[in-house]
Amino acid sequence: MTTPVLAVSRRTRSTPFTPRVEALGVKGYTVYNHMLLATSFRGVEQDYHHLKRHVQIWDVGCERQVELKGPDAAHLLQLMTVRDVSNTQFGQGLYVPLVDEDGGMVNDPVVLKLGEDRFWLSVADSDVWLWARGLAYGLGLDVEVFEPDVWPLAIQGPRAEELMTAAFGDAVRGLRFFGFQPFAFRGHDFIVARSGWSKQGGFEIYVDRADLALELWDYLWDAGEPFNIGPGCPNVIERIEGGLLSYGNDMTRENNPLECGLDRYCYTQGGFDSIGLAAVEKIHRKGIIRKVRGLRIDGDPAAVGTEAWAVHDGSNPIGQVTSAAASPDFGCIVAFAMLDKGFWSPGQTVRVNTPHGERSGTVCDLPFPKPEAKQV
Amino acid sequence: MTTPVLAVSRRTRSTPFTPRVEALGVKGYTVYNHMLLATSFRGVEQDYHHLKRHVQIWDVGCERQVELKGPDAAHLLQLMTVRDVSNTQFGQGLYVPLVDEDGGMVNDPVVLKLGEDRFWLSVADSDVWLWARGLAYGLGLDVEVFEPDVWPLAIQGPRAEELMTAAFGDAVRGLRFFGFQPFAFRGHDFIVARSGWSKQGGFEIYVDRADLALELWDYLWDAGEPFNIGPGCPNVIERIEGGLLSYGNDMTRENNPLECGLDRYCYTQGGFDSIGLAAVEKIHRKGIIRKVRGLRIDGDPAAVGTEAWAVHDGSNPIGQVTSAAASPDFGCIVAFAMLDKGFWSPGQTVRVNTPHGERSGTVCDLPFPKPEAKQV
Repeated sequence: MTTPVLAVSRRTRSTPFTPRVEALGVKGYTVYNHMLLATSFRGVEQDYHHLKRHVQIWDVGCERQVELKGPDAAHLLQLMTVRDVSNTQFGQGLYVPLVDEDGGMVNDPVVLKLGEDRFWLSVADSDVWLWARGLAYGLGLDVEVFEPDVWPLAIQGPRAEELMTAAFGDAVRGLRFFGFQPFAFRGHDFIVARSGWSKQGGFEIYVDRADLALELWDYLWDAGEPFNIGPGCPNVIERIEGGLLSYGNDMTRENNPLECGLDRYCYTQGGFDSIGLAAVEKIHRKGIIRKVRGLRIDGDPAAVGTEAWAVHDGSNPIGQVTSAAASPDFGCIVAFAMLDKGFWSPGQTVRVNTPHGERSGTVCDLPFPKPEAKQV
Repeated sequence: MTTPVLAVSRRTRSTPFTPRVEALGVKGYTVYNHMLLATSFRGVEQDYHHLKRHVQIWDVGCERQVELKGPDAAHLLQLMTVRDVSNTQFGQGLYVPLVDEDGGMVNDPVVLKLGEDRFWLSVADSDVWLWARGLAYGLGLDVEVFEPDVWPLAIQGPRAEELMTAAFGDAVRGLRFFGFQPFAFRGHDFIVARSGWSKQGGFEIYVDRADLALELWDYLWDAGEPFNIGPGCPNVIERIEGGLLSYGNDMTRENNPLECGLDRYCYTQGGFDSIGLAAVEKIHRKGIIRKVRGLRIDGDPAAVGTEAWAVHDGSNPIGQVTSAAASPDFGCIVAFAMLDKGFWSPGQTVRVNTPHGERSGTVCDLPFPKPEAKQV
C-alpha cells in the first residue's frame, strides 16, 4: 500500500492560514468543501494527547459559510431543516440537520443568526449553497444565497478559555455553549463562538478579513505560549471518543437524521414548513431500522479507510463501521457503527471484519462512556 | 515546503478500480466529487510522454453521473444550461455549460441522453445533484434526481482505438466524437463513448456494475499489452496543451461561460427556457471584460498551486494564471490565464509573477497552436 501525496491545485483551495499550517509541518491533508484541511501535525496520536491536555490552534477555513440574506432568509432556512428554527436568537448558534424531501441528510451545519434577515450556515462537506440556491430560485424566494469569504479559526483544548481570555479579555468567559458575540481585533469585529469540532472545549473565530488572518494567528499563538499551544486539527481519535459524527463518513444522503441519532434536533410533530418534515415524520411513525452506535473493538489498532468495515453476528451482515481509531485512553479501538435493529443495544457483542482480521466488538451509547481515569 | 500525504476516509470515496490504481503505484491523488482521483503514477512528465505516444487506462470514477429521470427531465436539463439541448439525440453526448441565474458557471458536464425521459450528466467537481434537486423541488417538476453508482473508466492515447477494437470489435471504430453506444462485456451492456479528458483520442466506459469492474480493467489491460498500455490519469501538462479547462481551477462560479471561451455552447439568442439565459444574454450585449487565453511563459518549470499567479503589464494587474505546467514538447511553461480586456490578443506580451520570480509571457489562442515537430 502506497501513501500517495495530495496533489494540490486552485480547485483544492488554500486558506489565509495555510502558510502557518505549512510552516508548522503539516503531515497530512484532506480536502473538505473543495479546500485543504490538515489531518495531522506530529502524528494523529501525538496530536490527540496534546489536544486533550493543552490547547491547539486549528485552521478550519474549510468550514465554509453559506449566507442567506433577505426577507425570505428565515423561511428558506426553515424549509431546509427539520429543526424548528423559529426562535433562533442573535448570539446563539444552532446545530441543524439539513434534510431533503426523502428524509436524506444533505448536511449538518451550525446556524448563526446575524440579523433578522441574515444567517450563516457553517457547513460540513457538501455544496449546500447549490441546494439553497436551487430551492430559492425554484420557489421564487426573495433571498440571496452565496458563500462569503469567511475562514473559521479554532482554539481547542482544556486551556482554550485561558488563552482566549488572555487574548480577548474576561468577556470571553461569558459565552455560553454555541453562543457567539463580536470581539475586536485590530479595529475589526470578529464573531467569536464557544464551539468547535472537539469535546475538549474551545472557540471558533469567524475570520472574515484575509488581510488580518496571519496577524490574528500570530497574536493567538503568542497568547498561547504560556498554555503550551501547538498546531492541531480535528482529531479522528478524539472526535470518535467524543461522539462527533462526520458528514460524508458516518452519515450520508443515504441516512435520515433519526438513524443518525439526531432525534433531539428533529421536531417530528411539525407545525412549520420544512421540505424534509413529512418524510422524517413517516420514518418516525414506522420506526427506524438501523441506528448509529458506539463500538469498542478489541485488538490491533486500525483506522477505517475509504471502505466501511462489515459488521456481522457470526453469520449474517448486521451493519457497518464507518469510522474507527485506536484510542490510547480507552485502550481499545473506538468506532462508529450503523447497526440494524435488534443489534444496537448497549452491551451486545458483534463481529467486525477489520483489515487485521475478524474482531469482537461491544455496542455502547454515544458519546462513549468515559473510561476509568488512567495514570498519564 | 512539505509534501503532505492525503489522509483518506469514507468521505474521500474510493472506486471499484482503486485496488488496481494502488497496485500500479499511484504517487499522487486529488479529491474530486468527494472521490479519489489519481494525479500521477511514474511522475507527471513521464506519464505525459507515455500518454502522447501509447495508451493508458484511467480510473475516472470521480466523474460522477447525475441522473435526471421522469417526464420533466428534459425540461430540467434545459433550465440548467444555456446550450439548446432540444435536439439532443440518443447516442450523441453533448458538452453543456451549467449556468445559474447570475450567469455563473455551476459545472460543465457532458450529457448523455439515455432515453426520452432519462439523462446522465457526467459532472465536474461540484454537487450538481443538489442544484438539480433544489430546482426540481422548488419548481414542482416531475423528475427524479439522483447520483447512480457509475464509475467511468477511460482508455486514452493514440493507440486507444486499436486497444478498444481488440477488446470490443470493429464496431468501436464507428463511434463519432462524443458518440456512445452499448457494448457487451460478460453479458452486460456497458455504455462506451468516444470521449475523455485528453486530446490524444480515446474512450470512456460507463461502468455501472461494481462486481465486473476489476474483471473489465484486467481484460482491457491484457488487450492493451501489445500497445504498451500503462496506468494513467488526467495529465496537467497534456490538458493545458490541449486547451481543456478544469472547473474549479480555470473557471468557477465567479466566471460566466463567455469569458471561459464557451461561446459556441451558448445560444445567446435564446428561444428556450433556461435559468441562466437572461444573464448570459446581458453579458453578451455588454461584452465581456476578461477572457481565458493560453499563455506561453519563459523560464523555469513551475506549476500553479492553490493560488493563482498574478499577471500584470509592468505596473498594473491585468489578470491571473489559473493553471500552468512545464511542457517538454512546447519547450516552455504552458498556462491558462484569465486576462482583462485589452490584454488578450494573441502575440501580446505580459508579465507573470511565478514562484520563481517574474517571467515574460506571450498570449495565444486555445487550444495551443501545435509546436514544430520535434525529434523524439
